[in-house]
Amino acid sequence: MTLRAQRAIDACWTIARFSESSDNITRTYLSQPTHGVHEFLGAWMERLGMEWRVDAAGNLRGVYRGDGVGLRRLLIGSHIDTVPNAGAFDGVLGVVLALVMIEAFEGRRLSYDLEVIAFSEEEGVRFGVPFIGSRGLIGDVDEALLNTEDRAGITVKEAIEHYGVAVSELAAAVLDASALGFVEFHIEQGPVLGDVGLSLGIVEAIAGQSRYELTFRGSANHAGTTPMRRRRDALAGAAEWIGAVEREGHSTLGLVATVGRAEVVSGATNVVPGEVRVSLDVRHGWDSARALAVENLLSSAHAIAARRGLGVEVVLQFEDAATAMDGRLAAYLETAIVATGRRPHRMVSGAGHDAMVLAKRVPAAMLFLRSPGGVSHHPDEAVLLEDVEAAIAAGLYFLQHLDPNAFDTPV
Amino acid sequence: MTLRAQRAIDACWTIARFSESSDNITRTYLSQPTHGVHEFLGAWMERLGMEWRVDAAGNLRGVYRGDGVGLRRLLIGSHIDTVPNAGAFDGVLGVVLALVMIEAFEGRRLSYDLEVIAFSEEEGVRFGVPFIGSRGLIGDVDEALLNTEDRAGITVKEAIEHYGVAVSELAAAVLDASALGFVEFHIEQGPVLGDVGLSLGIVEAIAGQSRYELTFRGSANHAGTTPMRRRRDALAGAAEWIGAVEREGHSTLGLVATVGRAEVVSGATNVVPGEVRVSLDVRHGWDSARALAVENLLSSAHAIAARRGLGVEVVLQFEDAATAMDGRLAAYLETAIVATGRRPHRMVSGAGHDAMVLAKRVPAAMLFLRSPGGVSHHPDEAVLLEDVEAAIAAGLYFLQHLDPNAFDTPV
Repeated sequence: MTLRAQRAIDACWTIARFSESSDNITRTYLSQPTHGVHEFLGAWMERLGMEWRVDAAGNLRGVYRGDGVGLRRLLIGSHIDTVPNAGAFDGVLGVVLALVMIEAFEGRRLSYDLEVIAFSEEEGVRFGVPFIGSRGLIGDVDEALLNTEDRAGITVKEAIEHYGVAVSELAAAVLDASALGFVEFHIEQGPVLGDVGLSLGIVEAIAGQSRYELTFRGSANHAGTTPMRRRRDALAGAAEWIGAVEREGHSTLGLVATVGRAEVVSGATNVVPGEVRVSLDVRHGWDSARALAVENLLSSAHAIAARRGLGVEVVLQFEDAATAMDGRLAAYLETAIVATGRRPHRMVSGAGHDAMVLAKRVPAAMLFLRSPGGVSHHPDEAVLLEDVEAAIAAGLYFLQHLDPNAFDTPV
Repeated sequence: MTLRAQRAIDACWTIARFSESSDNITRTYLSQPTHGVHEFLGAWMERLGMEWRVDAAGNLRGVYRGDGVGLRRLLIGSHIDTVPNAGAFDGVLGVVLALVMIEAFEGRRLSYDLEVIAFSEEEGVRFGVPFIGSRGLIGDVDEALLNTEDRAGITVKEAIEHYGVAVSELAAAVLDASALGFVEFHIEQGPVLGDVGLSLGIVEAIAGQSRYELTFRGSANHAGTTPMRRRRDALAGAAEWIGAVEREGHSTLGLVATVGRAEVVSGATNVVPGEVRVSLDVRHGWDSARALAVENLLSSAHAIAARRGLGVEVVLQFEDAATAMDGRLAAYLETAIVATGRRPHRMVSGAGHDAMVLAKRVPAAMLFLRSPGGVSHHPDEAVLLEDVEAAIAAGLYFLQHLDPNAFDTPV
């Protein structure tokens, strides 16, 4: 298993060389290096006896046929695009692990078809819209998305055509309703598994998110001539509220609350701040806990502003409910981890993933691998060999024991 | 006196029309409209029997001769440059008041020469360096300043030559050591006189200033996957410190402490802030009070950073000691205010003024006029007719009662 794990890690580093930059790993949606990744993965799939194609959303999809005809299908995979100056494992590892596991079958057939998917787009870098690849599988690539332009003025539609696939075939990319489900292996991108000292995690839910922009308005004044008691300092108010956000985050298990941006409008060293804009990002696996935290924080903003004679404007920028992973698939993954001698950690993912999109249509589950130091989206992103071994062992157990007859027949 | 006060206000509005913009009042150092102001003031001085010239630093200087020859000289005036989109009174009013007062003498001579100065530059807008005009009077216009460029690449030296005066004559601009002193009438630019309900203030000192930039450094992390207890959030630390700055400001009478700029480096809504830069501006009329406040605030920054596992870097950007105004001239001004039926308010100026520069060489004093609402550097900047009347009455008393023989003979 150690050799297979090393092989998976090596394959990630090989794929890392297909980059838009010679200095770092950067591979955005359908960029030129994507061709290299598709050829590398496609050749690997062919060696494993798999049929592969690139669908109209740019996803690479290979099928490892099961023992029989008209079989139902399990999907497994992750994404192959990256953020700029990325690490080598975010996304890619989930695709590579699927192929390493099929390799371990040495030609033995399963009782279902296994489709490996390398999603073309998850990070949202090129077009400012994430999940384009997985949206292709649930039929959610609409005209508005197709007409979205990148910085060079190229639309999603043009990018797809330039890449060499036909946008007209989008319907054929959509997932068949008879699919058994989707399983995604992914690095955690956080420090939780490291803190509990475990290799693998089972994702129970992907956290819901609320994002706001708040503008505190006071009165810009001369910092030398305006006594403290006469000030309506927008930054002092915002700073008090940033403290409240941090306390709220600490108050509830599993809650994260972040002010990531803060800007004094027309700020100058010698001017009492008149206007300050701050962002708010709140996440929790339970929508009710998130809603309560948001309510507390917006009340707190209004109370702080009122006491200080400031105005505050609140704009909701983005809101997404939590997505529960499929309980049965998660339990199967957990069983597989235990059966292969490891202790699983049940957790909530604070980041969005393709599994969140697929869950709208099929049962979906995720297995997390420990991220040393919690580092991701950074060249220092890493995985431990022993954790990759554990993931392969659990994954093989899971795939070999999955019984397609235990799943409902689609209507 | 009401007519004279209205005449002063009207003259300010007339001068306001000499602007670089047709929409607002903007008149930077030696800009084209300055010629119009010089012609307007020069013509007025000629009607009053004064001799005038523009010195090599661009200051307009007119002398109202006293009764005798070889008399000592009192200087009175303020600046005629403005910030962009300025009000009509900041600086200009002090020059106009001097001429309105001389007008009131109806040709009667004083026992000393009275020199009215319209400083060419105080705000520091064009070259990013303030007080160029008054620095000319203390011999502080050096080669470095002369070679400073504006945004168009024009040096101070070139600006002076283009204006039509000879840089080579700079030595002749320097104040004679026998001068009795300098008196500046200026709007307060703050709310203090309004709050105490008085027309006029006597400036005891111009506050010293300390300006710093602080950089808090933590660890940039994913806002979704990093639990609260695992964060080293640079903005949360900076926000706590901004609260400490505000409390420190309130803790000491006369102290002002301001964070005017705050910036999250590479900030994003979904990223825990890794680096935050903030400014600090501390002012007080007593240097020891300012030093203590700075010490407290830097200790507080280090303590907050240490407790939160952050780094903090502190860079001193600018420091200037408080400048005491001349006690005797201030007392004479105070006597004049009382003698003309008003109650003076003794105060510290939180903003810098030409009097601060002149004080390096001669006794200097300032009289403040109430700024309604504390508004300045803004088109809404105003003065009350009754306050201008009070200033003229007090000024006339002061000028008429000043005894040059009571001053030390220069060595």
